[in-house]
Amino acid sequence: MRLALAQFNASVGDIAGNIGVMRRLYARAVEAGADVVAFPELCICGYPPEDLLYKRHFLEANAAGLAELAKGCGEVVLVAGFAEMSEGACYNSLAVIKNSQIEQIYRKVKLPNYSVFDEQRYFTAGDKPAVLEVAGLRVLLTICEDVWDPKKLANFADCAGKRDVVLNISASPFFVGKQAVRKDVLGKCAKELGCAVAYCNLFGGQDELVFDGRSMVVGATGKVECVAKAFDEDILICDIAPGKDGWVEVTAVAQADDVCEDEIVETYDALVLGTRDYVRKNGFDKVLIGLSGGIDSSLVAAIAVDALGERNVIGITMPSKFNSAETITDAEKLAVNLGIDFGTIPIGEVLDEFDETLGFIQGWNNEGVAFENLQARIRGTMLMSLSNQFGYMVLTTGNKSETAVGYSTLYGDTAGGFAIIKDVPKTVVYTLCEYVNARAGREVIPESVISRPPSAELREGQADTDSLPDYDVLDAILKGYVEDDKSAEEIIEEGSPGEDVRRIIRMVDRNEYKRRQSPPGIKITPKAFGRDRRMPITNRFSSGGNGK
Amino acid sequence: MRLALAQFNASVGDIAGNIGVMRRLYARAVEAGADVVAFPELCICGYPPEDLLYKRHFLEANAAGLAELAKGCGEVVLVAGFAEMSEGACYNSLAVIKNSQIEQIYRKVKLPNYSVFDEQRYFTAGDKPAVLEVAGLRVLLTICEDVWDPKKLANFADCAGKRDVVLNISASPFFVGKQAVRKDVLGKCAKELGCAVAYCNLFGGQDELVFDGRSMVVGATGKVECVAKAFDEDILICDIAPGKDGWVEVTAVAQADDVCEDEIVETYDALVLGTRDYVRKNGFDKVLIGLSGGIDSSLVAAIAVDALGERNVIGITMPSKFNSAETITDAEKLAVNLGIDFGTIPIGEVLDEFDETLGFIQGWNNEGVAFENLQARIRGTMLMSLSNQFGYMVLTTGNKSETAVGYSTLYGDTAGGFAIIKDVPKTVVYTLCEYVNARAGREVIPESVISRPPSAELREGQADTDSLPDYDVLDAILKGYVEDDKSAEEIIEEGSPGEDVRRIIRMVDRNEYKRRQSPPGIKITPKAFGRDRRMPITNRFSSGGNGK
Repeated sequence: MRLALAQFNASVGDIAGNIGVMRRLYARAVEAGADVVAFPELCICGYPPEDLLYKRHFLEANAAGLAELAKGCGEVVLVAGFAEMSEGACYNSLAVIKNSQIEQIYRKVKLPNYSVFDEQRYFTAGDKPAVLEVAGLRVLLTICEDVWDPKKLANFADCAGKRDVVLNISASPFFVGKQAVRKDVLGKCAKELGCAVAYCNLFGGQDELVFDGRSMVVGATGKVECVAKAFDEDILICDIAPGKDGWVEVTAVAQADDVCEDEIVETYDALVLGTRDYVRKNGFDKVLIGLSGGIDSSLVAAIAVDALGERNVIGITMPSKFNSAETITDAEKLAVNLGIDFGTIPIGEVLDEFDETLGFIQGWNNEGVAFENLQARIRGTMLMSLSNQFGYMVLTTGNKSETAVGYSTLYGDTAGGFAIIKDVPKTVVYTLCEYVNARAGREVIPESVISRPPSAELREGQADTDSLPDYDVLDAILKGYVEDDKSAEEIIEEGSPGEDVRRIIRMVDRNEYKRRQSPPGIKITPKAFGRDRRMPITNRFSSGGNGK
Repeated sequence: MRLALAQFNASVGDIAGNIGVMRRLYARAVEAGADVVAFPELCICGYPPEDLLYKRHFLEANAAGLAELAKGCGEVVLVAGFAEMSEGACYNSLAVIKNSQIEQIYRKVKLPNYSVFDEQRYFTAGDKPAVLEVAGLRVLLTICEDVWDPKKLANFADCAGKRDVVLNISASPFFVGKQAVRKDVLGKCAKELGCAVAYCNLFGGQDELVFDGRSMVVGATGKVECVAKAFDEDILICDIAPGKDGWVEVTAVAQADDVCEDEIVETYDALVLGTRDYVRKNGFDKVLIGLSGGIDSSLVAAIAVDALGERNVIGITMPSKFNSAETITDAEKLAVNLGIDFGTIPIGEVLDEFDETLGFIQGWNNEGVAFENLQARIRGTMLMSLSNQFGYMVLTTGNKSETAVGYSTLYGDTAGGFAIIKDVPKTVVYTLCEYVNARAGREVIPESVISRPPSAELREGQADTDSLPDYDVLDAILKGYVEDDKSAEEIIEEGSPGEDVRRIIRMVDRNEYKRRQSPPGIKITPKAFGRDRRMPITNRFSSGGNGK
């Protein structure tokens, strides 16, 4: 049996567009001699469709799309995921199509309802295994989560008889290190079920999620035999044939040359894809970035250029009297290095006018936090004015460490359409900047940007360390508290300083309201802010952050 | 058996505080001769605790809180909801406590995972019915959703033998008309199970949700025998005794005098409670409201005064040259009528300064949408500056109709901590204003505010109807599309004009990004924006909104 796993960038809601791509890839796979062509989970409608699934007309459009797709389908079997409505229930289903007919439907059994997943909100679980017979082999059909508990799958599939291959169509979102987890799971599944496992994953960005592709086929021994491209469209083709001892053998026919799993490379690539797809799929061409001469905005600009091309990125620096000559120069240097348009909008006069007007209010103080926030809000308003005038999307520049502790101004530096590094800890921001320069073989991000102690430059002589511990200390605490849900006690036991831990936990808890109004951004860690971490704003529980 | 249903305002995470209130109410109920005192679902930790449930130390704190509560418990049975951790799983449980001992635990069987509910994200479902025997009666223990499908409950409970009363502890969020739905469900449950049903509901505001209390006891015939107060702490007490034919009889001992179910009254009361609890539970005393002299901000100010007292509400008007003398006067009149502090901050000079600075950018236009948004953002920045300076929370004033179609400026009029009327359609805003005046027996909200055609006053002669259909037409379309998930075709069939329907649907779809960054607000309809309606931002599906 020649199997083709066709990973592509399905757009949520674009049923006609998705079918168009599937037709093109099906034709290519047929030409390559495939017997079966598999596409990812819910690829007819894109993943995750969320509450679109509550619309009857959306489910009808899924059915119509599937019927349309079936029309162009010949002898070669096509397997595709779609949202199925049947007798008032909705299923996360897979259709097997041959000779213009839908021959079988399999319904996903295990519906994930943790992390970013809400599948039990929408879908009824299937309860019957399904096997497809092709070229003398028996292919057990599964969808994503179904294979993540191999023992349960083995029990469930037992009544379906012999199997040679498990075919798994997925929409498995990226986080750093996820591919290793998948290989482990698929390997265990292969061994537990005693057969090859062919895994077809979605690729593309959808709001906060990035799907990284990297479809693969694992042999019955658990070894990965071939892998498709990362973060790109691809057709992975292999032959699967009966071998000795009744086990099948997998032979790669067309695969990706070299699928990098370096954590920094994959993080960067995920950010580039996530940015490109959010901007483009939402109908924007160009983006605006406020360049402070600091490291966060520099990284954001570099990613944006890789995502959209230098012609589509505009950098604006908005100095006040608190900005040093060095940072202003660095912002400009960066823009030159990246080859992007660059403009300067000084905010001093607007700031003075605000200060004068607010000065009529008794108690107004132009030396405190309110005055610092005011500067950030003037900048946010400048960028949004240009955004509204010219139709550019503003990219915000806050990282995960700042987002966690609320080291930002709501409606100021958080104002914009997409917060591309909001799930990137500050320590990783540094590593990514070094990667950008190393990869280019030249100083793209000025060395002085990387080496200068970080500052928001909202008052004279300000440094991030005035309010926060060093970033390596901070990031360790945040990993424990945000990603691993540990208590203050546990984090302190692991070696972080008690006073910092308690203070930082308190800051994370108190700033949920800011995060709730911040733009979406790209998930790259196992637990991102957003759908992945649903905390109450009104919350009197103390995880050890004293004084709460 | 004398049964006491004790509804109280449990705060999420405030385990010590919640236990304190429960002790006080338990003592009162004991004094009133109760045999059993029941408290709402998850009242030890507050509802919904959301991802706090992923923290082991939070679950341990629940167990410790329950043990602490048990200590003070004597002969009289106490029933309370808590989050239970057991062998690595988490349950939405109910404990029966007597003589300082936890005598029984029942685990919720039906876990809602639709609308605002994510219970399958956290909880494992229980699978055993539980009966409490008191004073010769058998009480079937249930939690919230368990009784919403009476036939299934009857089957499930059959093996538990005879029952005289179903006790149901709930945390059932308010929407307009919900109490009638509950009465219907509880009545059916009573008839199906052939016994009385005693329902104890939470009261209080938690982020977007308001719990309205109104605990009640329904007789075996399905008739409501007694009801507790709406939107307030209360202990409902009744005697339940064996009657003829083996059925029990319910006699009220202490109940609320008159539980109003008028839709406008309950909407207003929900908004008042939701506002008070969000502001206070988040540690704020005072609120700031931008008063435009329009109907939305007028209603918000009236609600805020009822929620927090006139001393805690500050109205600020921020006129530009586009504001008419009438609206400025009306804003001041309203402030006088409400007895609140009032200030004026003209924005003209800041606006001119922005315009001058942005004028250096080629293509800047001070007559278009960007310039209109700029005015709103200056106002948002003024309010946030005062908020930061003085520690007041800004209440935003957008209604559901505007929020739906994006008739607002992100970071402008949407800037603030809580959007109290964001789930109130504009047509209901009018009715609520008339109610405010009628109830007061005087003109609180100036008649001219109610009668003047609505305008954002961001350019000369602007009217809402320049961009939107009349609000009764708009609200009918929005009800069909947002709340009922209908397609354009279906809404047109019901009588709305085709062109309006298609345009409005397109506007709703395109403005998901704005809603995602807007502050939370109070849910009063069956489907609110927020957790209740989870739509992708990136979405190419057209529900009939042509040209998308």
